[in-house]
Amino acid sequence: METDTISAISTPLGEGAIAIVRLSGPEAVEKTNRIFQGKHLEEVASHTIHYGKLVDPETNELVEEVMVSVMRAPKTFTREDVVEINCHGGLVSVNRVLELVLAQNVRLAEPGEFTKRAFLNGRIDLSQAEAVMDLIRAKTDRAMSIALKQMDGRLSKLIHNLRQQLLETLAQVEVNIDYPEYDDVEEMTNELMIHNTKTVHQEIERILQTAKQGKILREGLATAIVGRPNVGKSSLMNALVQENKAIVTEIPGTTRDVIEEYVNVRGVPLRLIDTAGIRETEDLVEQIGVERSRQVLQEADVILLMLNYGDELTEEDEKLFAAVQGMDVIVIVNKTDLPPRLNMDRLRQIAGEHPIVQTAITQEQGINQLETAISDIFFEGDIDAGDMTYVSNVRHVQLLKQAKQALEDATNGMEAGMPIDIVQIDVTRTWELLGEIIGDTVSDSLLDQLFSQFCLGK
Amino acid sequence: METDTISAISTPLGEGAIAIVRLSGPEAVEKTNRIFQGKHLEEVASHTIHYGKLVDPETNELVEEVMVSVMRAPKTFTREDVVEINCHGGLVSVNRVLELVLAQNVRLAEPGEFTKRAFLNGRIDLSQAEAVMDLIRAKTDRAMSIALKQMDGRLSKLIHNLRQQLLETLAQVEVNIDYPEYDDVEEMTNELMIHNTKTVHQEIERILQTAKQGKILREGLATAIVGRPNVGKSSLMNALVQENKAIVTEIPGTTRDVIEEYVNVRGVPLRLIDTAGIRETEDLVEQIGVERSRQVLQEADVILLMLNYGDELTEEDEKLFAAVQGMDVIVIVNKTDLPPRLNMDRLRQIAGEHPIVQTAITQEQGINQLETAISDIFFEGDIDAGDMTYVSNVRHVQLLKQAKQALEDATNGMEAGMPIDIVQIDVTRTWELLGEIIGDTVSDSLLDQLFSQFCLGK
Repeated sequence: METDTISAISTPLGEGAIAIVRLSGPEAVEKTNRIFQGKHLEEVASHTIHYGKLVDPETNELVEEVMVSVMRAPKTFTREDVVEINCHGGLVSVNRVLELVLAQNVRLAEPGEFTKRAFLNGRIDLSQAEAVMDLIRAKTDRAMSIALKQMDGRLSKLIHNLRQQLLETLAQVEVNIDYPEYDDVEEMTNELMIHNTKTVHQEIERILQTAKQGKILREGLATAIVGRPNVGKSSLMNALVQENKAIVTEIPGTTRDVIEEYVNVRGVPLRLIDTAGIRETEDLVEQIGVERSRQVLQEADVILLMLNYGDELTEEDEKLFAAVQGMDVIVIVNKTDLPPRLNMDRLRQIAGEHPIVQTAITQEQGINQLETAISDIFFEGDIDAGDMTYVSNVRHVQLLKQAKQALEDATNGMEAGMPIDIVQIDVTRTWELLGEIIGDTVSDSLLDQLFSQFCLGK
Repeated sequence: METDTISAISTPLGEGAIAIVRLSGPEAVEKTNRIFQGKHLEEVASHTIHYGKLVDPETNELVEEVMVSVMRAPKTFTREDVVEINCHGGLVSVNRVLELVLAQNVRLAEPGEFTKRAFLNGRIDLSQAEAVMDLIRAKTDRAMSIALKQMDGRLSKLIHNLRQQLLETLAQVEVNIDYPEYDDVEEMTNELMIHNTKTVHQEIERILQTAKQGKILREGLATAIVGRPNVGKSSLMNALVQENKAIVTEIPGTTRDVIEEYVNVRGVPLRLIDTAGIRETEDLVEQIGVERSRQVLQEADVILLMLNYGDELTEEDEKLFAAVQGMDVIVIVNKTDLPPRLNMDRLRQIAGEHPIVQTAITQEQGINQLETAISDIFFEGDIDAGDMTYVSNVRHVQLLKQAKQALEDATNGMEAGMPIDIVQIDVTRTWELLGEIIGDTVSDSLLDQLFSQFCLGK
């Protein structure tokens, strides 16, 4: 348990009504009380709120008018004493409050340090801590649902159960070896081992199957609109954004990220690949084979390939089809209000099994059918965002894959007639790998790295 | 008193650890309790904090893990029942919480509506309400100090005193007229009136004198660096930013404002006019007479006019001097490490009373002297940010000017022998104008307009 007191601004930076400077640690209350004019904070009850003024004890200068929340350990986010100072949400205001707090010999918290303390003090496990960050970064409702369930400990419980099964198996094997009551103990032990590892293996596989869908639910169905210039890509993009509730448009942060559009098409979170990318694809036809445009395509979960009904199929169109081979493609024949020049028979031949939708987007025709096609692709894999537990974190997926591999090594070992104590090593390894997901068996350096990805103040 | 319950997101939008959805109104607690799983919020003590889960009562779906603060009227910001829901600071998370709250028949608050209620319910007056917004928008420490004092009621007290003096004068005059005890009652009344209006007039003038400095303290000393290309403008800008603590760099909002640099030079808040403007001035020499470059100059409180020590004075340099005539100018002779070619005698002649500072910025020479010159200009007007009350709000300045004018009308009237009841009208008008500053005599439409400039959630 760390013993110093830390503080950071815990609300997003910017202009708003309220900002929060949070403190956590054994001296959180005492340090705040030094700069607070109002009730004596060291004497107030836990989980109470107090109006007062922050005054610099050095200069006696009024620094802010604030509401201070005092929360005593252990019923707090970090399980330490926590103080939240609610001040006015301006940049200067909140920075002055933080400076005043730090001047009382309080250390500025590192990114993620509050959550790290919650983890180290045993309030949450590692997968729950990671869910906190996922929740904050969630771009879609469904991403948030997944994170929320993970934070609530759903994944933790699954992992705990699997580890428990492995542990019981190992224990039983140990007992069988140490106290053989029957002659066929070796056979029985092998059978038990094979049966139990198979069960766990199946469950891991089942969880891993949710990974791709988890990623989509978490990040949205990455959708690239490609086609020759003037085929109607921008109109389609606008139509999708306008017709559907835009879930959220990323607010440009300090890193000035590219703005992406998220739209909700019949419950499917769609991430329209950024306009910069789209602009890139304007020249896609000339650039086929060029690395950058291939990347745009590879990033996509779904390709909307647009053609012009009023134009003949060109060699460029056919190159596009070649470039997206093997991907989920919806072919859109746009501008059906023009006199037909596109050879539909030839198109059906090239398109193969990809669905073809006819639209006249500027006339608002066919968009409905397009949305059906999009939702068909998504729900094909029987995604049920309702009550399932999805694994969506890359680190978790990696560990689950390794755990699965370790179990397979164990099974192969048994089948190859390896001695049981060698097989035990692989099973123990599986148990450890699963433990890393919830942070039970995890190194300090990994912890540091994980929490440093958090935002400041969390 | 308004009677519905309102809600809004009260923290800045963006990714952060914590966001707050605030409710205010008679049903704030009951509506929150409907969606809260934890303690029964209608039964908890005021000013207490409760951990729990938000659950949609329609679907039973878990929406967020939250901390809820319950604050009962009248000891709240709005003097109504207030609930603050602290949730995770992601965009989706806080929006889902707000949506869930609004779905309980709670109305989305208009911008500034919380503060408006604080004003309408008599907790703060109008100048204090305006200070809340100034405080949030403050870009410099001193701007924040001014706002904080105004919020604390300093300006209000000044205005109250002036209005009280006017009211007492009017009452005394009334008494004199109704119950003339002496023969020279008319003369006495005039004398009283002249004496008292003069006192108030002087005080208003004194307050108005702080307006320009108030504006500078609030917005920073707008500083433009001008000079021919390659004279060292960018180096100077960088030197000022690096040498001095940058107070705050504006975070680009949704409007994508130009980024300006604020630096603190010996306690002087300097606003370096934005790089776009600076870039503009690269061509300033060619553009003298062009409207845009004149604007850049006019916006500035101080001009740093840079010359090259290793170059002769050009016609362009002289044009620059002509363009900044009558302004606060510091002449900087840069690159003193080069062989001298500048005619210093001629320069002193052109520069007149403007201070001249010699620098070699890339050699880090002369910057100290420049900073002295800047602080001299600023403190010339005897600015004392310590304990004075500054008027910095444009609306207040306008009203004070009108009040001053009305008082002068009264004085002129008396001197022209107008009947006292006509003079009373002007004095009453003064009283009303001052009342508008603190919101005592103010129309609904003005209130709507003022509060609509607030940010959402305040």
